[in-house]
Amino acid sequence: MADLWQSAMDHAVAAAREAGAVVREALQDEMKVMMKSSSVDLVTQTDQKVEKLIIQSVKEKFPTHQFIGEESVAAGAACVLTDCPTWIIDPIDGTTNFVHGYPFVAVSIGFAVNKQVEFGVVYSCIEDKMFTARRGKGAFCNGRPLQVSDQKEISQSIISTEFGSSRDPEAVDKIFSSMRKILCIPVHGMRGAGTAAVNMCLVASGCVEAYYEIGIHVWDIAAGSLIVSEAGGVLMDVGGGELDLMSRRVVAANSRSIAERIVREIDGFAPQRDDAPPPRA
Amino acid sequence: MADLWQSAMDHAVAAAREAGAVVREALQDEMKVMMKSSSVDLVTQTDQKVEKLIIQSVKEKFPTHQFIGEESVAAGAACVLTDCPTWIIDPIDGTTNFVHGYPFVAVSIGFAVNKQVEFGVVYSCIEDKMFTARRGKGAFCNGRPLQVSDQKEISQSIISTEFGSSRDPEAVDKIFSSMRKILCIPVHGMRGAGTAAVNMCLVASGCVEAYYEIGIHVWDIAAGSLIVSEAGGVLMDVGGGELDLMSRRVVAANSRSIAERIVREIDGFAPQRDDAPPPRA
Repeated sequence: MADLWQSAMDHAVAAAREAGAVVREALQDEMKVMMKSSSVDLVTQTDQKVEKLIIQSVKEKFPTHQFIGEESVAAGAACVLTDCPTWIIDPIDGTTNFVHGYPFVAVSIGFAVNKQVEFGVVYSCIEDKMFTARRGKGAFCNGRPLQVSDQKEISQSIISTEFGSSRDPEAVDKIFSSMRKILCIPVHGMRGAGTAAVNMCLVASGCVEAYYEIGIHVWDIAAGSLIVSEAGGVLMDVGGGELDLMSRRVVAANSRSIAERIVREIDGFAPQRDDAPPPRA
Repeated sequence: MADLWQSAMDHAVAAAREAGAVVREALQDEMKVMMKSSSVDLVTQTDQKVEKLIIQSVKEKFPTHQFIGEESVAAGAACVLTDCPTWIIDPIDGTTNFVHGYPFVAVSIGFAVNKQVEFGVVYSCIEDKMFTARRGKGAFCNGRPLQVSDQKEISQSIISTEFGSSRDPEAVDKIFSSMRKILCIPVHGMRGAGTAAVNMCLVASGCVEAYYEIGIHVWDIAAGSLIVSEAGGVLMDVGGGELDLMSRRVVAANSRSIAERIVREIDGFAPQRDDAPPPRA
């Protein structure tokens, strides 16, 4: 079974690199001539273009595989993780960064079988860093092995998180209260790259000790979750239980002790799950 | 007078590049073999080494010039901006990032005469981006002209700031309350690179519309302030008045209207000025 999915992973890496080139080109060429006010259209167009590019190329090679893609779900496709081989795709993770040219924008491709992630590919396309992980075979950046930080002291740690896109006062209350409590543990610093996939790769690279967020989607974290665990890190729910990819809640850390320490400070809440049934008419 | 300081600026660019190479080397070589727990020593050593490297090379060429350097001030040197030609140096802006390998670390060299910044050089050494500005002659990144964002809508803007290093509850209260009010204006997003110099260069590059912070020092912002203004941006105090380089407060934005909009939401406070007289015995 060991090499069963290797050809799929090779395909994912090639597709991510091709997709990243499209994203970079969109950034370099189109942003020059357009007003920022029409940038929402640019995002949508490039997002859809890149997702179609990836899905079409996969379908040709693996016609029986299933897909969960951010844009397909936005267009009404079901978002259910079955036991079938499933490609979980975010064509542009960090769309706000993309619109502004902020230097962290990623293509994220996870691949799950029996609801377990078999490989993950995150291509941070402005930095030109290709992060990859295959279950049981380690995590890599541009071919070099990744290892999480060995920092054991929370006070010497950097914790990443995001303000998120919700401006709902109750959610904002909890986001700020968690951030403040974590900052004042105290920690060494707090950061946020503006993309979940890159935040998770920064955990895997040892640049930050932990990342947590509520509100992300399965396509933001499927690939990154395996990259973190294969780099020696741990994943859990913000409530301390097991990570549930569809729950829109994640903690990724270099160690169980750092993860559990920040879990104690997080004011959790539960956004609607990615696999929630559509509302009845 | 136009070219009076050009040779000094050429020297600054060369010194920043050389300093950046030392910083990169320290990151690549030393971080591999050391425990993170001794990283504070690495920072101090590299900070001091880089500042000495820059100051010595400047002194040989410009023996009458004065200096304000982060490490020299930490070691007891006066921090007073006179009318004399003065080099204002931060050998490593983003020391927390440096310790952790987070990818924004900058060498910042500003040069002021009659208290006015004549040129600014910020070398983001992991990204290998050399930002330069000469008063009246524009701002550049790796030789390409910089221009701030033309975004006029605050709701479509990214605002950068930092949590800062203070864990004093009153300061933390104001930092969080300002952040929350700005997030909920609403803005498109909030970011923080972990270095004032890079945050300002991101404003100059059009990647974020504005950056504000209370608690930074003159060596963090002297070079960046000119890079922002020469890229078409504006600078002001967090209270809306004129920028005072020694006040430890800064707003840098793409336009006066965006700057004034965020000033309305900032809960200001006044850390001890950089040029405060030392306490009497």
